[in-house]
Amino acid sequence: MGLKALDYESLNENVKKVQYAVRGELYLRASELQKEGKKIIFTNVGNPHALGQKPLSFPRQVVALCQAPFLLDDPNVGMLFPADAIAKAKHYLTMTSGGLGAYSDSRGIPGVRKEVAEFIERRDGYPSDPELIFLTDGASKGVMQILNCIIRGEGDGVLVPVPQYPLYSATISLFGGSLVPYYLEEGANWGLDVNDLHQSVAQARSKGITVRAMVIINPGNPTGQCLSEANLREILRFCFQENLVLLGDEVYQQNIYQDERPFISARKVLMDMGPPLSNEVQLVSFHTVSKGYWGECGQRGGYFEMTNIPPRTVDEIYKISSISLSPNVPAQIFMGLMVNPPKPGDISYDQFVRESKGILESLRRRARIMTDGFNSCRNVVCNFTEGAMYSFPQIRLPRKAIEAAKKAGKVPDVFYCLKLLEATGISTVPGSGFGQKEGVFHLRTTILPAEEDMPAIMASFKKFNDEFMEQYEDYRSYSRM
Amino acid sequence: MGLKALDYESLNENVKKVQYAVRGELYLRASELQKEGKKIIFTNVGNPHALGQKPLSFPRQVVALCQAPFLLDDPNVGMLFPADAIAKAKHYLTMTSGGLGAYSDSRGIPGVRKEVAEFIERRDGYPSDPELIFLTDGASKGVMQILNCIIRGEGDGVLVPVPQYPLYSATISLFGGSLVPYYLEEGANWGLDVNDLHQSVAQARSKGITVRAMVIINPGNPTGQCLSEANLREILRFCFQENLVLLGDEVYQQNIYQDERPFISARKVLMDMGPPLSNEVQLVSFHTVSKGYWGECGQRGGYFEMTNIPPRTVDEIYKISSISLSPNVPAQIFMGLMVNPPKPGDISYDQFVRESKGILESLRRRARIMTDGFNSCRNVVCNFTEGAMYSFPQIRLPRKAIEAAKKAGKVPDVFYCLKLLEATGISTVPGSGFGQKEGVFHLRTTILPAEEDMPAIMASFKKFNDEFMEQYEDYRSYSRM
Repeated sequence: MGLKALDYESLNENVKKVQYAVRGELYLRASELQKEGKKIIFTNVGNPHALGQKPLSFPRQVVALCQAPFLLDDPNVGMLFPADAIAKAKHYLTMTSGGLGAYSDSRGIPGVRKEVAEFIERRDGYPSDPELIFLTDGASKGVMQILNCIIRGEGDGVLVPVPQYPLYSATISLFGGSLVPYYLEEGANWGLDVNDLHQSVAQARSKGITVRAMVIINPGNPTGQCLSEANLREILRFCFQENLVLLGDEVYQQNIYQDERPFISARKVLMDMGPPLSNEVQLVSFHTVSKGYWGECGQRGGYFEMTNIPPRTVDEIYKISSISLSPNVPAQIFMGLMVNPPKPGDISYDQFVRESKGILESLRRRARIMTDGFNSCRNVVCNFTEGAMYSFPQIRLPRKAIEAAKKAGKVPDVFYCLKLLEATGISTVPGSGFGQKEGVFHLRTTILPAEEDMPAIMASFKKFNDEFMEQYEDYRSYSRM
Repeated sequence: MGLKALDYESLNENVKKVQYAVRGELYLRASELQKEGKKIIFTNVGNPHALGQKPLSFPRQVVALCQAPFLLDDPNVGMLFPADAIAKAKHYLTMTSGGLGAYSDSRGIPGVRKEVAEFIERRDGYPSDPELIFLTDGASKGVMQILNCIIRGEGDGVLVPVPQYPLYSATISLFGGSLVPYYLEEGANWGLDVNDLHQSVAQARSKGITVRAMVIINPGNPTGQCLSEANLREILRFCFQENLVLLGDEVYQQNIYQDERPFISARKVLMDMGPPLSNEVQLVSFHTVSKGYWGECGQRGGYFEMTNIPPRTVDEIYKISSISLSPNVPAQIFMGLMVNPPKPGDISYDQFVRESKGILESLRRRARIMTDGFNSCRNVVCNFTEGAMYSFPQIRLPRKAIEAAKKAGKVPDVFYCLKLLEATGISTVPGSGFGQKEGVFHLRTTILPAEEDMPAIMASFKKFNDEFMEQYEDYRSYSRM
């Protein structure tokens, strides 16, 4: 018999082309080792609760009550739940048509989308239209949906930062488009140079590719930099000149670990710039309940907001959302709670502030411990994590190590990360999974291990790295800085 | 300035081609009317809780506790939750790595997948491998993922029943494949004639299309028929001969309203047939927490099980799942609870049985009330809903109505359903959204309105239909039967 449709050889080639290192070779090996009983520290993905971060109490109380609405009629409910959680649960249940078990509108519950719009307005100082906000099963699903609308074939290019979070490269491959890289400058704190963007577009054009969209990740993943307002203005001007849709991945907007460059949204900068840009540049911004001090990854909640997208396109996006009927409803409630948290005077306010501040301040300290830990190794250099949840140190690998990797049939940073995993249980992602300049090697780790474990983890890393260097250093050559 | 990437004219053409009537013109108009204050009965989509079906208590108690695990340490927890719900919550929390807020493995929590495998083994009498079961955000997402792997371009065809649930037509359009229809026989209780399948394949081939897969929906949506074992054997033999992957949409397997043809899974029939079929025919089966007596649509939980799919393909599907990191975790717990419900002797067993039986028995009665109601109209004929959640009556439209529709720029059944909506608030889906033979018209409604409302709804339908006929009947011609 001939090949069958689900035999490997006859699969959709775009599916086969996809690469997704965050759950790639390293993760698979780590999972195997875990099965064999080895203790693994999963720092391959920004998954705070998996590393012991406690969920915020208030939103969990509210969603628990929404899941069990019959408790609201129980005279004992006040023994387990505070009154403001009970009131909030009622507030959200009223917005649904049938509770958490009913499909919502495919764009999400109107009342929650209104709360998101109000949040955006408070944040940016410009009104936001709930009709242009769609709730999604996590931000990734939103990104995939928008790219699906944009990409018509391999002649369509999307500018993506390198290094980048591989959601973008994977999705562009899956939909058969072309990734057009622009490089972030490691030596300039992973800054974005707009002159390079023009070059990237020109280069793509010379290959017959029409660049249609640009992705920014702010704060950066895996690079952790925060874009300045001036930089965002340049980017928006560039998108205007080149007629590009800007996709603003702003999922780490609450994860800021320095005071010089607070988060500023692409939308605010665009509105500040005024016409013609403010009513011409097409922008889609993404947010999530998975990051910030929430870390509610497993709930899969997100939204995207569209700016300057014409109604007919919004209708098309709505239609595509409808094929899978609705984003999951519990996560929509989490989104409502995230954009509309307890206020001063509410019973749960103090606890909420204490918990959320505790998480953010600890993350800030952990970012510092990790950066310093990496920089204390003679062959490692690491920019400070200004925002997001990752550290992305450059590992200078000796020639002997690169040769050994080659012999083992591995990319050098994969080789290094595998050895690190086997020796220490630390599960990272090799820099090659994100893209990096030729001959330079990195790894990405989250800054999420518990703060009290952090010194031991960094010591374990340093010990491994020292031994690795001892084994492979040839006192002659390094990979270039 | 030229067109921008998200201007309608420059969108991905496949996106524009998608049609999805379940949330189409009728639904949009119904939503408008609702905003204007009109009472709408949303029977356009199988969304039981939206029409007043109460969620089962036990699973909601368990998931509420999983959302608020701190309650498990509260000495008062027993005042609100039964002991077996507390034990189950602990059972599932132990399976997660970080509770509901942590991403699970992209295929779903291993422990839940094991419970699904055990359920399948109990149901079919053949062992099932958890490694070949992937949990998904609802069954639709699983179907989309598998079709994405299969479809390489418009030369790839997928056999889809007509009438069909438009998830299939929409997804095939979105991925740029070709839908190859096979017609269900309304006069034979929506039966499937295998001879027609051969014809469909031959016809597709003559157009240069390679048919690669076949979809069956059993019990049928929108048609409600249950496939017999003999019929399933013929289908599987046909797939074997033609080298087709069979996609078995079995989401309504618990919704059976007659005793002659109980549900039997495609997988059981395949295994019963033995080699060479049982180890050759590629089969992917889909299931969900949204249907049955659960109706937990808003949670978005589903799974697919793969049979005879080679490991390299499974790896590719795993990779694609990983791009969006993990299905939502709360719904994974619902899935665990669905396949592993309370057992005799458990504290919550009696309540669980009472609730679930109550729902199923009422659905069975409602299926009968609705069929009879439709058949009591002189120009309506309707097969009995043997399973699933829908009634799909044929409406014989007079020529004058067809002409009036034409004048209004509407497909005749859309015209009829819009008038029905405006007159009665009943929101249905026109048969044209599912596909039907030329010149024959239907509508789909769910059988989900509350049982006590059903007589009034059917009376309201009959009154509308009588008046419609009075207005348009010309005593000369009908659309053909």
